[in-house]
Amino acid sequence: MGQSQLKLFMKEYNEQLQNELKNYISTLNAPEILKSAMDYSLQAGGKRIRPILLFATLQAFHQDPKKGLETALALEMIHTYSLIHDDLPSMDDDDLRRGKPTNHKVFGEGYAILAGDALLTYAFQIIAQTPHYEDHLKVKLIEWLAKGAGPEGMVGGQVADIEGETKNLTLEELQNVHKNKTGKLLAYGILAGAMIAEATAQQLEILQQFASHLGIAFQIKDDILDVEGDEAKIGKKVGSDSAKDKSTYPSLLSLDGAKEKLQYHIQEATKALNKTGLETDLLQEMVTLIATRES
Amino acid sequence: MGQSQLKLFMKEYNEQLQNELKNYISTLNAPEILKSAMDYSLQAGGKRIRPILLFATLQAFHQDPKKGLETALALEMIHTYSLIHDDLPSMDDDDLRRGKPTNHKVFGEGYAILAGDALLTYAFQIIAQTPHYEDHLKVKLIEWLAKGAGPEGMVGGQVADIEGETKNLTLEELQNVHKNKTGKLLAYGILAGAMIAEATAQQLEILQQFASHLGIAFQIKDDILDVEGDEAKIGKKVGSDSAKDKSTYPSLLSLDGAKEKLQYHIQEATKALNKTGLETDLLQEMVTLIATRES
Repeated sequence: MGQSQLKLFMKEYNEQLQNELKNYISTLNAPEILKSAMDYSLQAGGKRIRPILLFATLQAFHQDPKKGLETALALEMIHTYSLIHDDLPSMDDDDLRRGKPTNHKVFGEGYAILAGDALLTYAFQIIAQTPHYEDHLKVKLIEWLAKGAGPEGMVGGQVADIEGETKNLTLEELQNVHKNKTGKLLAYGILAGAMIAEATAQQLEILQQFASHLGIAFQIKDDILDVEGDEAKIGKKVGSDSAKDKSTYPSLLSLDGAKEKLQYHIQEATKALNKTGLETDLLQEMVTLIATRES
Repeated sequence: MGQSQLKLFMKEYNEQLQNELKNYISTLNAPEILKSAMDYSLQAGGKRIRPILLFATLQAFHQDPKKGLETALALEMIHTYSLIHDDLPSMDDDDLRRGKPTNHKVFGEGYAILAGDALLTYAFQIIAQTPHYEDHLKVKLIEWLAKGAGPEGMVGGQVADIEGETKNLTLEELQNVHKNKTGKLLAYGILAGAMIAEATAQQLEILQQFASHLGIAFQIKDDILDVEGDEAKIGKKVGSDSAKDKSTYPSLLSLDGAKEKLQYHIQEATKALNKTGLETDLLQEMVTLIATRES
């Protein structure tokens, strides 16, 4: 019953998001090959966890999820650009992403880099241009997005992750890498939704705690899937972390230890949610989805 | 006399810009290697034409050029990111930039891509965060910057430029490539300065014409330098365009034809300037500088 509520919600908003992503690219006054490269990776989208967190947070505030549309588009574009650049030969050198050839395999490295650059830049343009937000809200949304995605967020985390490949990280260092690499942009979905809904400072603080536990849980689950996931479902090879001797939650804590830690953060995320006083059914189901996903 | 006024102005504001670029990177809470890679290319800066256009435009409105500082930082960061990505092996594959090894030659391709991504993202963060602008101005500055730098601006122009390498372009197509690839970000310096100075719609329109002619003149001069420039002064090989059989102003118009066209756009730029009713001495000297530069 609960699960199907989220399923319906995801189906509805993912479809809208998918259509709007297509619209926003197709109306661009830009070379067709660039638009194709941008569109290719946007349409290869997975579960759209970040935008759905944003929509579900608005729902929790009894606000129309559509109020988050432009921000969700921007967020998904930035997430997608990061995947395109991460997959490049000079980075992770991946040929497949979600079971499909990676962007540079289809369009070549040069265009893949430029498609990523274009998605990143366009994300800020979309928020700045929308007629649906007040200027003050736009500025906050852009500021937080840049912080979450830039050198103090995702890009910084990606660099720390590359550096960490040749070191044995402590648990704290590992957590710090992931807080920046994936945590801040996941959290952005929740916090942007809260800002659009005009959350109080106290609500923002509790949601920040929620987002922090959710982000750690997300990464632990990712690491577990790399050990015991199903390649067909993940759409890429498993065991790539241990092949690289990379520090992960299972390598530092053992697989069972990682699973225990996952449970701990799931519980803490739920506790935080319960303190918000909001209608959190969908967000709670998102927690479960993230903890039990198979890809 | 005139020339020395611009020289003094450039010396003063380039020094401030250089220092602030350093400060803004050094205070980042990010991995040292990322900060070094960002800083390396920022400090390898040339004449800083874009920020100087911004400062000089503020001066033309009798405003303190320092009001443009954060926007100038953002603009120079975006220009610098574009050079880092353009130099990559999968793009222009350049080993030298302004006589120094290119970013990927020093830091490796992966970090060079990430340093570029970080500079691009940080640029928007800086404008969003400054306490010196009203929200309405921030939104406009961000919107125009993203438009000038993204798929409808610089990145789109870069893609069109790559596509154009294998075609014979008409003069109109060539002009269109450059309008996006370099013109819009050059124009941004002027238009951002005007927006910060609260220019009227009419002033903005005239300055837009000025910027358009200046941008074309800039590119024609670039193409001429690639034919008859001094390698030691340019800091890279000349003749790279003709080696690639690339459409350029000299290849389409002959060298003399290109020089004539340069003069035409210089005159039109000057005419537009004279219509603004502003104190345009510095901007006029910038026109001369751009038309007569040796690198």
